[in-house]
Amino acid sequence: MASPLLLVVAAVIALGAGHGAAFDPNPLQDFCVADTTSKVRVNGVPCKDPAAVTADDFFFAGVDRPGGGAASRRYGFTALPVQIPGLNTLGASHARVDVPPGAVFPPHYHPRASETAVVLGGAVYFGFVTSYPDNRVYAKVLRKGDVFAVPQGLVHFLYNNGTAPAALYATLSSQNPGLVLLADALFGTGLPDDLLAKTFLTDLDTAHRIGAKFRSS
Amino acid sequence: MASPLLLVVAAVIALGAGHGAAFDPNPLQDFCVADTTSKVRVNGVPCKDPAAVTADDFFFAGVDRPGGGAASRRYGFTALPVQIPGLNTLGASHARVDVPPGAVFPPHYHPRASETAVVLGGAVYFGFVTSYPDNRVYAKVLRKGDVFAVPQGLVHFLYNNGTAPAALYATLSSQNPGLVLLADALFGTGLPDDLLAKTFLTDLDTAHRIGAKFRSS
Amino acid sequence: MASPLLLVVAAVIALGAGHGAAFDPNPLQDFCVADTTSKVRVNGVPCKDPAAVTADDFFFAGVDRPGGGAASRRYGFTALPVQIPGLNTLGASHARVDVPPGAVFPPHYHPRASETAVVLGGAVYFGFVTSYPDNRVYAKVLRKGDVFAVPQGLVHFLYNNGTAPAALYATLSSQNPGLVLLADALFGTGLPDDLLAKTFLTDLDTAHRIGAKFRSS
Amino acid sequence: MASPLLLVVAAVIALGAGHGAAFDPNPLQDFCVADTTSKVRVNGVPCKDPAAVTADDFFFAGVDRPGGGAASRRYGFTALPVQIPGLNTLGASHARVDVPPGAVFPPHYHPRASETAVVLGGAVYFGFVTSYPDNRVYAKVLRKGDVFAVPQGLVHFLYNNGTAPAALYATLSSQNPGLVLLADALFGTGLPDDLLAKTFLTDLDTAHRIGAKFRSS
Amino acid sequence: MASPLLLVVAAVIALGAGHGAAFDPNPLQDFCVADTTSKVRVNGVPCKDPAAVTADDFFFAGVDRPGGGAASRRYGFTALPVQIPGLNTLGASHARVDVPPGAVFPPHYHPRASETAVVLGGAVYFGFVTSYPDNRVYAKVLRKGDVFAVPQGLVHFLYNNGTAPAALYATLSSQNPGLVLLADALFGTGLPDDLLAKTFLTDLDTAHRIGAKFRSS
Amino acid sequence: MASPLLLVVAAVIALGAGHGAAFDPNPLQDFCVADTTSKVRVNGVPCKDPAAVTADDFFFAGVDRPGGGAASRRYGFTALPVQIPGLNTLGASHARVDVPPGAVFPPHYHPRASETAVVLGGAVYFGFVTSYPDNRVYAKVLRKGDVFAVPQGLVHFLYNNGTAPAALYATLSSQNPGLVLLADALFGTGLPDDLLAKTFLTDLDTAHRIGAKFRSS
Repeated sequence: MASPLLLVVAAVIALGAGHGAAFDPNPLQDFCVADTTSKVRVNGVPCKDPAAVTADDFFFAGVDRPGGGAASRRYGFTALPVQIPGLNTLGASHARVDVPPGAVFPPHYHPRASETAVVLGGAVYFGFVTSYPDNRVYAKVLRKGDVFAVPQGLVHFLYNNGTAPAALYATLSSQNPGLVLLADALFGTGLPDDLLAKTFLTDLDTAHRIGAKFRSS
Repeated sequence: MASPLLLVVAAVIALGAGHGAAFDPNPLQDFCVADTTSKVRVNGVPCKDPAAVTADDFFFAGVDRPGGGAASRRYGFTALPVQIPGLNTLGASHARVDVPPGAVFPPHYHPRASETAVVLGGAVYFGFVTSYPDNRVYAKVLRKGDVFAVPQGLVHFLYNNGTAPAALYATLSSQNPGLVLLADALFGTGLPDDLLAKTFLTDLDTAHRIGAKFRSS
Repeated sequence: MASPLLLVVAAVIALGAGHGAAFDPNPLQDFCVADTTSKVRVNGVPCKDPAAVTADDFFFAGVDRPGGGAASRRYGFTALPVQIPGLNTLGASHARVDVPPGAVFPPHYHPRASETAVVLGGAVYFGFVTSYPDNRVYAKVLRKGDVFAVPQGLVHFLYNNGTAPAALYATLSSQNPGLVLLADALFGTGLPDDLLAKTFLTDLDTAHRIGAKFRSS
Repeated sequence: MASPLLLVVAAVIALGAGHGAAFDPNPLQDFCVADTTSKVRVNGVPCKDPAAVTADDFFFAGVDRPGGGAASRRYGFTALPVQIPGLNTLGASHARVDVPPGAVFPPHYHPRASETAVVLGGAVYFGFVTSYPDNRVYAKVLRKGDVFAVPQGLVHFLYNNGTAPAALYATLSSQNPGLVLLADALFGTGLPDDLLAKTFLTDLDTAHRIGAKFRSS
Repeated sequence: MASPLLLVVAAVIALGAGHGAAFDPNPLQDFCVADTTSKVRVNGVPCKDPAAVTADDFFFAGVDRPGGGAASRRYGFTALPVQIPGLNTLGASHARVDVPPGAVFPPHYHPRASETAVVLGGAVYFGFVTSYPDNRVYAKVLRKGDVFAVPQGLVHFLYNNGTAPAALYATLSSQNPGLVLLADALFGTGLPDDLLAKTFLTDLDTAHRIGAKFRSS
Repeated sequence: MASPLLLVVAAVIALGAGHGAAFDPNPLQDFCVADTTSKVRVNGVPCKDPAAVTADDFFFAGVDRPGGGAASRRYGFTALPVQIPGLNTLGASHARVDVPPGAVFPPHYHPRASETAVVLGGAVYFGFVTSYPDNRVYAKVLRKGDVFAVPQGLVHFLYNNGTAPAALYATLSSQNPGLVLLADALFGTGLPDDLLAKTFLTDLDTAHRIGAKFRSS
């Protein structure tokens, strides 16, 4: 079942705005502002008539406000995508993330981007995990003004294990980096319990009980 | 603790051969055969002296033999990377995968590649999961001669829920696609139990018990 | 005059499915399944409505069957393109090739891809030729389970000079690698006989006689 | 004559760290942390031994402190490059910029990147200019929490025409986007006065007088 | 106010032909001839029906004629874009430039391309300026048959300080490299005089006087 | 046996200078001038110390002189590669080609580039052939000042069937496009006569006789 956060982010993706991806194909004109009304579907998003483009197509407000965007019911964090239609073809996207004390932005990755985040306030334990077979964790406690980089496609996480709210501004190297929340992709999608039990080296009952939490939230 | 499979794949990565990645940077010469003895480290792998290159640098044997490569102790599948040093700069890599009856190649993804697999024998339940917030599963039971494609960076899995051994030949769109096994990245890396408990909407004890299995296998 | 093989491959190209190209532009969304009914023409192929996409858009069957696809009247080989509309934007394509005893898949190249082929059965003499001025041949006799790689855009060939049928599964690093058969491009296109005679350091009569064979088959 | 700012940024460029560029070639491994001691020069920067990589290679502190980096003597702004050697091959770079009241970050561009900036405090007049022959200005007054995007390679500028200090956090779509300050490139490089006079449709004396200011600061 | 040159180049850009850019996304078919009548706007230009394509779509005449294209009223040079719709997706564009004695093609850059120019006749002082903080000029007097290369996005200029007309043939590494004339972008776009005065370390009156020349020509 | 032309071009390739390829990986610094003395081999060519770079590294002279470079003994044309070490990483290369009356630059292609050529003098029949199964020829007689474009990787040819010498200036979209002369790749490399006979739908004797010409010239 979709949390409110889902709906906000889905709307952004549907608009083709507010997301950007590092290593995207190079632009072939000064700008190609996303035309969110176009019926044509291509790799990326078709462009608006340049004559109708204004400075507001490159503008977004509100990154200074805590808790913008909708909250994740499951995890408590909020994510506010920076919705700029002019970022279409420009290879970048951005978001503000707020993580209350005790909350996590659980392990996830972006299939089409690297990420760099700067801490706007509070403190978080932030790290990423390298690929098989190393599976090595590179992590730090980050405080206000700290920046941390995550290589393309690697699993990373935020954990606010302090007592003050934490906020970050994240930048990604694609206009549409994509987001895969590992637990959601495993337990929130109807995969068979026996597949999940084998995956986690556990019994069917444990797999079923974890899945039940995802089905009810 | 590293299973034998880990060691084989790690060796391959260390050699810089046997892996390839779609969407890699274009080649700037006919070939740049990986020089596995070079001390120089660059994006990709330095090239061998072209005068020393032979047809064997583009060749690999043994994809017809079941169970090549080492077995995963945790999951029972085997993966045989196609080790061709000449694939350096060519944007592709390949592997044979064998999955015994009842075994899984558990949910994983490749951070730098798309994948296509053809079934050499047996039958498997094969699928991938789209990114947030859709989290939609696209899956099929595949039989001998069937081919299935997985978009770049998305989670996918194999489950041999039949009674005959299954084998696939997988091709990836990068010379070094990378492999992230989701459960390993979460429970096999020393992430704190409370972070994992929150991630799976479960209690500390369950998280600890699952982790114990990964620590002991 | 078009052989049946021509027609099959042409249909595939017209559909924008079943071909893939290494080093293609990166994808900007999870998938962009080729919409073969679109009237819009862009670099690559427009996308189908994601809501209408099913697992079958990533699926193809029949790679296990010998002689799929149509036969080349001129050369006797058959090529079965793996037609997966979901490979649009994913930088890869695949085909099964069957070469009867005594037949060749004559010297050809792919203008937009590298290639790797695995032998499914039989034996073939397989090689590629480097560019000017080296013009060096790298070739091997390949048997079942052998893999051979061909750098981007280089001329390569298959020759079954044995007595058993040979079959290969080829993967290419582009969704639409293109195929140029050298002899066809020279003698099957109406180039002037005197240009061809000069090209082959031969006399007009020889050039004309060779061309006559291509015009009548 | 080089201002202190020059020296700081030059050092960063010499290190090959702290800069990143959108649309860079894709990475071919999990990470390739810049080895700033390597004698080898390639497109980008060679990699450090992965075994010596730590979380600190992905970390930078101090973006919260006003006026980090050195001040431009000519213009009064300060720029603090985010120096993260792990950004090598990741297609991104970042900087904090402080602009005192009355100061400008004068018209400039990045030859290898697009840019997006978020205002951390204060207000600035921020805009970019499209290419010939449109030469159109897209500009806004930005306040805290506002974000503005600049297409790849286009001229843009910041002007703090208010009374409070302004600060921004800028992200660029390349690990080494480059920076060209238009007035510096014209008057600070020894170009002949008559070329400059013709360029600005003015007389030799005016060109010489402007150049004198750049030569003495 | 637009000079005749503006109008010619604008028309070419509107057609999506006659410009090309190195490092553009790779082509995904043999050709995608620009369809200048399409209402669809994408990154680059949609393709014409391949069945309607002729050799003339890859052809342009007139590069041998001095002074083709329209003259820049401000600077006296002429630029004749090579208008070939078939260059869409091919990563290149070309132009003939004529510079009368005493005239300049003033400092400019191409935001999406590198450039190489060969001198067809006469002599010019040709150079480029590297990025901050080096700001170093690399320049030569070029004569008939000389070739000079300019890295991607760097400022460069031509100055015919001799007595004979000079002509060059320039090639750029993008189908639409873009052109930014520095003085135009600064003084021909309505930027505030005080911003420009600060930029050039000069007084308001000088900035206003220079701007007046651009407004009246 | 290598003609003098071979040696000139081979030298150029060995230097890693004078060739360039469209769609090459993007540059990550202002310039990376080819260091032809480096022992390190990477995709492309390592860079010279920037402190040792001069304007001459971006310069080449002699494109105005007929017959520069060495002549092809087999075909009579001459090719003069524009040898500019500064083109390393810039995605382009260039050459002057002279074709005497009656001579051909026989059918060939560039595995890593598109091409555009402008006629400097004389007239030539110039065309390209599309890929299978269309195999369609797009050709024109070109005269002085005419420009013609060839899509990436397609076979093309020049035939001077007039009475005056013809000269062209060709630009390619890669720093190292590669050159494959079709007849050379087939008959000048020691491929077996029976493979060639089957390829050309002819008898062994004809294949052997053609090959003999290539072996003796």
